[in-house]
Amino acid sequence: MNVLQEIIPNVKNMKQLQNLVLARRASQIKEELRQSEFSNLCFKFTCSQRVRKPFKEVINVSWGDAHKTGMKPLSFVQQVLAACLYPQLVNSDRLPVGVRQRAQSLLKGCDGGSVGSYTATRGISERVHRVSEFITRRDGGAPSYPENIFISPGSQWNILNVLVNSEASHRTGVLTPVPCYSIALMSIRGLGAVTVPYNLNEEQGWELQVEELHRALESAKGVCNPVALYVINPGNPAGYVQSRKSIQEVIQFVSEKRLFLLADEVYQDCVHGENSEFVSYKRVLAEMGPPLSDTVELASFHSASKGFMGECGLRGGYVELVNLDLAVMKYIYKLFSTDACAPVLGQFALDMMMKPPQPGDPSYPLYSMETQHIRTTLVHNVKRVLEVVNNLPGFCCQPVKGVFAFPRLHLPPKAIQKAKEMGMQPDAFYCMRLLEEAGVIVSPGCDYGQKEGTHHIRFYIMTPEDTMEEVLRRLSSFHTQFMKDFS
Amino acid sequence: MNVLQEIIPNVKNMKQLQNLVLARRASQIKEELRQSEFSNLCFKFTCSQRVRKPFKEVINVSWGDAHKTGMKPLSFVQQVLAACLYPQLVNSDRLPVGVRQRAQSLLKGCDGGSVGSYTATRGISERVHRVSEFITRRDGGAPSYPENIFISPGSQWNILNVLVNSEASHRTGVLTPVPCYSIALMSIRGLGAVTVPYNLNEEQGWELQVEELHRALESAKGVCNPVALYVINPGNPAGYVQSRKSIQEVIQFVSEKRLFLLADEVYQDCVHGENSEFVSYKRVLAEMGPPLSDTVELASFHSASKGFMGECGLRGGYVELVNLDLAVMKYIYKLFSTDACAPVLGQFALDMMMKPPQPGDPSYPLYSMETQHIRTTLVHNVKRVLEVVNNLPGFCCQPVKGVFAFPRLHLPPKAIQKAKEMGMQPDAFYCMRLLEEAGVIVSPGCDYGQKEGTHHIRFYIMTPEDTMEEVLRRLSSFHTQFMKDFS
Ligand SMILES: Cc1ncc(COP(=O)(O)O)c(C=O)c1O
Ligand SMILES: Cc1ncc(COP(=O)(O)O)c(C=O)c1O
Repeated sequence: MNVLQEIIPNVKNMKQLQNLVLARRASQIKEELRQSEFSNLCFKFTCSQRVRKPFKEVINVSWGDAHKTGMKPLSFVQQVLAACLYPQLVNSDRLPVGVRQRAQSLLKGCDGGSVGSYTATRGISERVHRVSEFITRRDGGAPSYPENIFISPGSQWNILNVLVNSEASHRTGVLTPVPCYSIALMSIRGLGAVTVPYNLNEEQGWELQVEELHRALESAKGVCNPVALYVINPGNPAGYVQSRKSIQEVIQFVSEKRLFLLADEVYQDCVHGENSEFVSYKRVLAEMGPPLSDTVELASFHSASKGFMGECGLRGGYVELVNLDLAVMKYIYKLFSTDACAPVLGQFALDMMMKPPQPGDPSYPLYSMETQHIRTTLVHNVKRVLEVVNNLPGFCCQPVKGVFAFPRLHLPPKAIQKAKEMGMQPDAFYCMRLLEEAGVIVSPGCDYGQKEGTHHIRFYIMTPEDTMEEVLRRLSSFHTQFMKDFS
Repeated sequence: MNVLQEIIPNVKNMKQLQNLVLARRASQIKEELRQSEFSNLCFKFTCSQRVRKPFKEVINVSWGDAHKTGMKPLSFVQQVLAACLYPQLVNSDRLPVGVRQRAQSLLKGCDGGSVGSYTATRGISERVHRVSEFITRRDGGAPSYPENIFISPGSQWNILNVLVNSEASHRTGVLTPVPCYSIALMSIRGLGAVTVPYNLNEEQGWELQVEELHRALESAKGVCNPVALYVINPGNPAGYVQSRKSIQEVIQFVSEKRLFLLADEVYQDCVHGENSEFVSYKRVLAEMGPPLSDTVELASFHSASKGFMGECGLRGGYVELVNLDLAVMKYIYKLFSTDACAPVLGQFALDMMMKPPQPGDPSYPLYSMETQHIRTTLVHNVKRVLEVVNNLPGFCCQPVKGVFAFPRLHLPPKAIQKAKEMGMQPDAFYCMRLLEEAGVIVSPGCDYGQKEGTHHIRFYIMTPEDTMEEVLRRLSSFHTQFMKDFS
């Protein structure tokens, strides 16, 4: 027996994400498509033995990743980053003056004027200040302090280490929504903590209800020691947006129960629909005044991967920590120090997200046109998704206020039976068939946790309009056939 | 008392790196210098109250970061990355054809052709293959398999989670060298593991001696459960290079004692000096043949931050895992999945490190000239450092075969006394004075662990020649005065 196997006694039973299983299968299918195209080219007259797929390419809308689906990066971001990497461009007149100015000011914060230098652990000082200015502006003046901000490679979970490396004898518990962003669940469990599920109310548009938090907390008794509440607002996978009142109730709850509040707010820029407006936890907390505003411990996350920028691959995000004890802050600082620094270009992307071109800037007109186009696309796609999906028998989708659709799927008993026989979750089975037969990857509800006996699929809707139309076309015809096959 | 303070009972006594204390003080000094320059400009005739510093700028050679000290990035790398970010450049004839080709081929591996898409957890498949080709070539044909390679944001320590999240009742122990790269020590301890120190033999040019490993392992009895041995080759902070024979001995040792071998080989490209040659642990292991080559569990790290490229800020590295059990590999894969992916541009930088321009490529002549220049600079600096430092009374520096000088410092008793009074480590005290009085940041040996009663300083020598000359000039005159003051 190997050394490592011995010291990880049960080789921790971390769940395998079905999403990754689908991604692996998709790679094989892509390879098959490539080869069949190749053999079509080379042996036009040979009769290929391969099973032909009724599609030419796989469309992946299972990730929250705009560029992956073909959305274009913002020109301003592309140009500024290119100029930062290759400063000769800064001095050439091939780039707009606003771009060159921004690049120059970004490079000034780098030692040696190079994106290739390590930065301070918490991020480049000027960029950290930029984040705190953004937050203050966003929150109507409620102050944000640079000392409380850590720029990280993506809106990462380092902060959880604090909770979990605890020497308390009980196992650490974190209240997590059902359904919940899957990587969050994996991170929490990967660190050895216990997730304590609370249900969002699907029938009420995935509302977070405080009675349910009370129930969940009770349920943890004797199982673990709950120390934190994790909320995602705007939601993922379910695209709801919390009201100010709902946020106030949650804050009251964590204060009473003495929980650390982890507010994942990475989707704050993409809210749409009637009566929906993003309000940050930080802002509501400040508005509630003392004693709450001085005592509730809050971490709020944001990321350059999301919003109109959608720069997932550069890896830049931040966490703002509010009301944490100084000793704890020092400890967190040291924990962060074990990770060198966030990638410089991710820090730059975040900077541009925090302060995009303003009216009057030479780069503003193009920037504004591009973001307006994304907004229009999003609104169009939401409308189409609801029209199409809610008209398919067995599907039922709540209003979508963010960037994901998470319709419920009432599967026929025969399909559920078949899935069981194959050792699969019913919605994972559905998704695998959708991939095999229609070349579309969406992710199954089972990856996110869902109420016992319910099934869902999640897909991303910030895609080019024609891509979304193609997805809906393929989904509709696949679904109709699927329901027939298993009726 | 705050919630978080309660659950981290002793707010973990992680040591504060003196290096970071120096960095903070340096920021203040820089600000003072900026202000005094400003007041010089504005109030030419006012007599400033400020204490004047006898230097105009702070030079920082305390990090292993070439660009920070003013070394120029490689043009090929800059140009390719700029073209990847702003693909219009690929189609312009402003960039050499070799650059445009490389950019095109890199972008082909990205979904949507954008660096802004998430990649697979382990890295872009083509980049992972490139790494394994590099290793196979480097190791004279000993095969490397893509499945065993994980591209990460820097040569990061994720892998340690595996060891530490163990549910074994004993605390996990990791044997670590004295002196040792400080972030490694912090990471291991930050994860809750125990470091078990083994001394390198300074008098023998910092040789790693196997008897010392035996002693260290014995010393862990009753304290913790040692599961891994961490070696750094070429060394940091001490710049030694292990011989093939020494590596064989270490491999025998871990095999006998059933330890997981963590080989940090990030400095493999910068070896120089007589009879020094880098040989990888992987290669030696393969050469030793079965049963060792089939059983010893090895992780080997490399990073785009080091070598001639020195792209620390982009964050790209890899770990190759050898002989790990399949179940453990699956677990590691899941652990990695909790971290999205390594930054795409870091992955690209790594790709160029793995396969730089080759003779015949249009980009080769410039690339070759630039790397040759860096090599010459390094050799020149090493020579000068040894000449100067070994001529200063109280200093004694072993041969330098890598990128750091780590001279021993025999401090006068009065200086040690003074440091004690100020609650500082003697070498940290020396470094702080060097910063205050000469504007040079080097790091103190105490950050790395050192044999009881010995003191050192570490500084980076991959700097422009004139920067190194200035560092040596300031160090010499400061040191002479310091020794006088405390004699
Ligand atoms: C709710 C939520 N939080 C955080 C993230 C993390 O994004 P990143 O790590 O790219 O910043 C995501 C990404 O999909 C998300 O959906
Ligand atoms: C021995 C050693 N290992 C690893 C690293 C990590 O480098 P990075 O995280 O930038 O890849 C360093 C950086 O200085 C180092 O000195």
